[in-house]
Amino acid sequence: MSNIFGKSFRITTWGESHGDAVGVIIDGCPPGIDLSVETIQEQLNRRRPAQSDISTQRKEADKAEILSGVFEGKTLGTPISICVWNSDAKSKDYEEMRSLYRPSHADYTYQAKYGIRNWKGGGRSSARETIGRVASGAVANLFIEKEYKTEILAYVKTISTINSNVEIKNLDSTSIESNIVRCPDQSAAKIMINAIKEARKSGDSLGGIIECVIRNCPIGLGEPVFDKLEADLSKAILSIPACKGFEIGSGFEGTRLKGSEHNDDFYMEGERVRTRTNNSGGIQGGISNGEDIIFRAAFKPTATIMKPQETVDSSGRSVEMKGRGRHDPCVLPRAVPIVESMVALTLADHAIRQRGQVGTT
Amino acid sequence: MSNIFGKSFRITTWGESHGDAVGVIIDGCPPGIDLSVETIQEQLNRRRPAQSDISTQRKEADKAEILSGVFEGKTLGTPISICVWNSDAKSKDYEEMRSLYRPSHADYTYQAKYGIRNWKGGGRSSARETIGRVASGAVANLFIEKEYKTEILAYVKTISTINSNVEIKNLDSTSIESNIVRCPDQSAAKIMINAIKEARKSGDSLGGIIECVIRNCPIGLGEPVFDKLEADLSKAILSIPACKGFEIGSGFEGTRLKGSEHNDDFYMEGERVRTRTNNSGGIQGGISNGEDIIFRAAFKPTATIMKPQETVDSSGRSVEMKGRGRHDPCVLPRAVPIVESMVALTLADHAIRQRGQVGTT
Amino acid sequence: MSNIFGKSFRITTWGESHGDAVGVIIDGCPPGIDLSVETIQEQLNRRRPAQSDISTQRKEADKAEILSGVFEGKTLGTPISICVWNSDAKSKDYEEMRSLYRPSHADYTYQAKYGIRNWKGGGRSSARETIGRVASGAVANLFIEKEYKTEILAYVKTISTINSNVEIKNLDSTSIESNIVRCPDQSAAKIMINAIKEARKSGDSLGGIIECVIRNCPIGLGEPVFDKLEADLSKAILSIPACKGFEIGSGFEGTRLKGSEHNDDFYMEGERVRTRTNNSGGIQGGISNGEDIIFRAAFKPTATIMKPQETVDSSGRSVEMKGRGRHDPCVLPRAVPIVESMVALTLADHAIRQRGQVGTT
Amino acid sequence: MSNIFGKSFRITTWGESHGDAVGVIIDGCPPGIDLSVETIQEQLNRRRPAQSDISTQRKEADKAEILSGVFEGKTLGTPISICVWNSDAKSKDYEEMRSLYRPSHADYTYQAKYGIRNWKGGGRSSARETIGRVASGAVANLFIEKEYKTEILAYVKTISTINSNVEIKNLDSTSIESNIVRCPDQSAAKIMINAIKEARKSGDSLGGIIECVIRNCPIGLGEPVFDKLEADLSKAILSIPACKGFEIGSGFEGTRLKGSEHNDDFYMEGERVRTRTNNSGGIQGGISNGEDIIFRAAFKPTATIMKPQETVDSSGRSVEMKGRGRHDPCVLPRAVPIVESMVALTLADHAIRQRGQVGTT
Repeated sequence: MSNIFGKSFRITTWGESHGDAVGVIIDGCPPGIDLSVETIQEQLNRRRPAQSDISTQRKEADKAEILSGVFEGKTLGTPISICVWNSDAKSKDYEEMRSLYRPSHADYTYQAKYGIRNWKGGGRSSARETIGRVASGAVANLFIEKEYKTEILAYVKTISTINSNVEIKNLDSTSIESNIVRCPDQSAAKIMINAIKEARKSGDSLGGIIECVIRNCPIGLGEPVFDKLEADLSKAILSIPACKGFEIGSGFEGTRLKGSEHNDDFYMEGERVRTRTNNSGGIQGGISNGEDIIFRAAFKPTATIMKPQETVDSSGRSVEMKGRGRHDPCVLPRAVPIVESMVALTLADHAIRQRGQVGTT
Repeated sequence: MSNIFGKSFRITTWGESHGDAVGVIIDGCPPGIDLSVETIQEQLNRRRPAQSDISTQRKEADKAEILSGVFEGKTLGTPISICVWNSDAKSKDYEEMRSLYRPSHADYTYQAKYGIRNWKGGGRSSARETIGRVASGAVANLFIEKEYKTEILAYVKTISTINSNVEIKNLDSTSIESNIVRCPDQSAAKIMINAIKEARKSGDSLGGIIECVIRNCPIGLGEPVFDKLEADLSKAILSIPACKGFEIGSGFEGTRLKGSEHNDDFYMEGERVRTRTNNSGGIQGGISNGEDIIFRAAFKPTATIMKPQETVDSSGRSVEMKGRGRHDPCVLPRAVPIVESMVALTLADHAIRQRGQVGTT
Repeated sequence: MSNIFGKSFRITTWGESHGDAVGVIIDGCPPGIDLSVETIQEQLNRRRPAQSDISTQRKEADKAEILSGVFEGKTLGTPISICVWNSDAKSKDYEEMRSLYRPSHADYTYQAKYGIRNWKGGGRSSARETIGRVASGAVANLFIEKEYKTEILAYVKTISTINSNVEIKNLDSTSIESNIVRCPDQSAAKIMINAIKEARKSGDSLGGIIECVIRNCPIGLGEPVFDKLEADLSKAILSIPACKGFEIGSGFEGTRLKGSEHNDDFYMEGERVRTRTNNSGGIQGGISNGEDIIFRAAFKPTATIMKPQETVDSSGRSVEMKGRGRHDPCVLPRAVPIVESMVALTLADHAIRQRGQVGTT
Repeated sequence: MSNIFGKSFRITTWGESHGDAVGVIIDGCPPGIDLSVETIQEQLNRRRPAQSDISTQRKEADKAEILSGVFEGKTLGTPISICVWNSDAKSKDYEEMRSLYRPSHADYTYQAKYGIRNWKGGGRSSARETIGRVASGAVANLFIEKEYKTEILAYVKTISTINSNVEIKNLDSTSIESNIVRCPDQSAAKIMINAIKEARKSGDSLGGIIECVIRNCPIGLGEPVFDKLEADLSKAILSIPACKGFEIGSGFEGTRLKGSEHNDDFYMEGERVRTRTNNSGGIQGGISNGEDIIFRAAFKPTATIMKPQETVDSSGRSVEMKGRGRHDPCVLPRAVPIVESMVALTLADHAIRQRGQVGTT
């Protein structure tokens, strides 16, 4: 259960990493939106493995097919089914994984919960599951971009101990895509890339922090009290594999401020109510206030490493496990479109809900 | 919309801070659980205002009444309705708030979203809404404690820049309740209490971090891929007013580690699969693994302060607002039972879902 | 579980017949609607026991209180909590019911499902639960009446073997309320009333059929494929106690027609697409087409009778049960506002969902 | 929206009749169930067009592929994706349908609701959508059959004015499958088959009634008050295209009985509580009581006929429409497995929910 995300713009993702295919169904996409498969493909390409020499080298075209819900180039309001066939599923690589629990992977917990698991390459817990998120996120993004001119931009803020220095107000997709690590601070990016290459060589992996800004979010999204916008964003982001933390606006650092320092004073900018500062991160009382929504997400280093590790097998024996095959030394560059997709899905869902709840006057 | 939390153990909270009452309906509590109103009252007392001289001085008995769902001391499996009447609702204090948007409060966003708001004391965005969470959380806790011996303990880890030093493994409810700031590090607690008193005097407010541990969480809770246990915990916690961040296990700091440092090696402890370290924070692949679940939540300083602030009113005029009446210089001690309640509600919900999904063998 | 109805306009009803109170929370009512408690009370009065000498004589004022969600006469968009206190709960009448399973009541199935039940007067399975439906239905009706001029009218079409002859196009609330059985065919109504009085005298009960028409339903409500409008109406109606059947448009009789007789030809009435006949009952492909929506609901005779019956007790002993106390010889007149309420709730829910899903052009 | 059915055992169907494919995702199927594609195919074959000379002659192999969720012959607990490719999509047949609203079809309402429609062969409103229902229903059936020995049997009870005479207690799948109309009363079946052939020849269509019995339904399924088992069954059945009515147990006829005639007296059969009669139809208070669940569903004659009809086009012009191409003179024989599937899906969903809600003792 629970492969469904959203309440009004709902997606269902499906597929194991070494099954025939992975995909997604979108239920609740409004009709009449111009949608071509290229829009989806463009985002899948940003998530695709082997897109650069700092990502995993699994060879997958990740070519999207739209099987339903679009007619003569427009969405029908009916379910949009998008499918991507798996090609490079080297199950032999995984034969020894049949009974082994890889440290900090989901092998043990899946086995404990379900009593069975597809041990080939992580099965459902594989990052390939996120293909469905990115494909549907591209559609959600199309919707909110067209209806509200909302723009979602994520970038790699830190890798391991390497920080970058990026001004949110200058952020754009060109600068993010200007290098393979998706960090617009070029000098930091170089150091990051080297560090990732180093990690690859030593069979190790690195984590980091992704920062995301949402511009032109319509005022009034978010549903108090339980579906506050930051709560739903947080759930969306924490559902991404390897994510260990989420903070919005002033976040953890903001806890050190006093109320008089933290409060965002209001002023008028023409007809519009604005805030002088944005410690709230664009959301107040669970509802967007029209300022930039800014949050950060923490990603732990990937669990798959090429170094020997202590573990146990399904019969309860201690085993020394040796890494083998391919590994992804750092998922963050490829996680950028996943973060953006989860945001787009959350906003599309809330936008549709808000349209339904508009008040009587 | 969205005053409902949970899918199988579902609560609906209702009530404005200056309406007649606040309350909660629990839908989906299993039958046959011994439940007395005292269990609920005990937790409400921990959340109650004016419980100490470092919290708000609003006078409220916060006395719970169970109106349905319990018969001869046991839950019936039918909806449990719990109601708390408001008493100390000094609306006069708020008369000037009719058209004023208090900085970093929900006044403006509620008005923008709904076109109307109960401007008396925050209405629905008031912390009084959390009464329903704590009342229902007490019931959820009873359920998981009885069925699984699960124990949930939260405490105040930092206030503003004041850190504490607490060993999670020694944490118990006695040490948490041993002082009014709910920080078991007594020397840190003293400094925190003084800082809060200082903030009160100067009309300012303080934030901080709450840490929470869940012991004996049954293995196998959490539903990949979207209702991962950490994702649902995160949403639960971020839905609490003033919360700005959530991190689990190694969290943001863990992003600085390498995979070889971060991975939690497996070993056998008798029949049981254990991890040597717990950077995962008790959850792997979105599913609890039986280790302690540990997370931290960031709370910003309260928005209500007694200092003059710049703001605007609903006609778009600039106004200098002077704080008046009562203010809560630090919500964290009272937020401890709210955090615990949201955890209990999340776990009860997932436990019931997991019982339904048990595999065929 | 499952005391929640609706997806976007959601109600949660609570309360046992012999508990302290019964009530409802509405989550998702749009803001800005003029709402007074009188609107609710008016409908509760139509459902109230002892309103005439053909209904049960339980004495209940059924006085509604609005505890939240309304401010200065308008809905806030926050949960509306409505509460009705129970007064005439003669539990002594029920003492012998502690271990007895009344035939065709829910005593046995509740005990079997939950392992416990409130045996006083039916507990949750009592018709008093429908108070929450009628109270919230009044609010839903206000919304759709104001937004779409939609009108919902139900009446008693048959009682036992007594048919009436009513022209749907002449139906109005005055004619429905013109007699105590709520059948606008006055001569049939007289026979029905006598039959019900006769049933009361002989300690027996009668069933019948309620017909309902929805006028000015907005075109486009209903969500293929699973939330077709007729499917959701059917569920709403079958969830009313004692309901055993639902048919829309031509219904069961229509199965005897040929396609060439049954099809509703289209024609233009000015700018509007109309159908010559209305065998579809106002819904095609699960979506309202603007014609009158017409359905019928079958209600079995009430289970409580005053005649001796064979049954068993909870220890598995055969018992002859004698009817005692008060009984309701025919629920249909009081079920009329319940049917209308369930329709209003269904339409409000679908109207809000449809507003959210409006297409891009 | 609303292509998702169920709460715990949830399916999402997708696909248009003239798109590339149709399919279904099952989310919430418990792990460890032996599942082969043959089990699914067997049911699809019963729904397939052109299976006999009384059904539509569209040529479709309707071959199922399982793309995920099954591993080494067992369900994984992850989403099961089942796909069927469309082959015989003669779009040219439909060219004139581009702007025409076929009487009693969904053409007009889809256009009015969505502002766009796939006009080729009904698009989403086509009966091909039910392929996903039958495929997932086969899986649901496997689950409840294995766990509870529950058996679901539907058959054609009437076609147009032709009644059959079938004893429910003798019903089995062999007798149902013994003829192409799926009516175990052989003499009635012959008349029905002839009537359908006659209808085909004259370009007309016939409706009828399907009756369904559920044996060995576990006691305790159904969730008062809104998800009563009969309410959810009713919704499930009314969501099938062309269904216009649902009645359970005594149904509409039962409204003519008195309470003393209608009540089902209880008696003990060994340890088991039984009822002497079964007017309740196996459900009391919304909860299954262990007796056979018996209901009937009314299906109108198919809308597609080969006779000329009056209609309008999308520009508001009156048009005489001539039937052309293929038509299905009677859907009932093929609707039998669809009815059974919707029942299986409803029961699986409720069984899983009930397992989660089991009481504490």
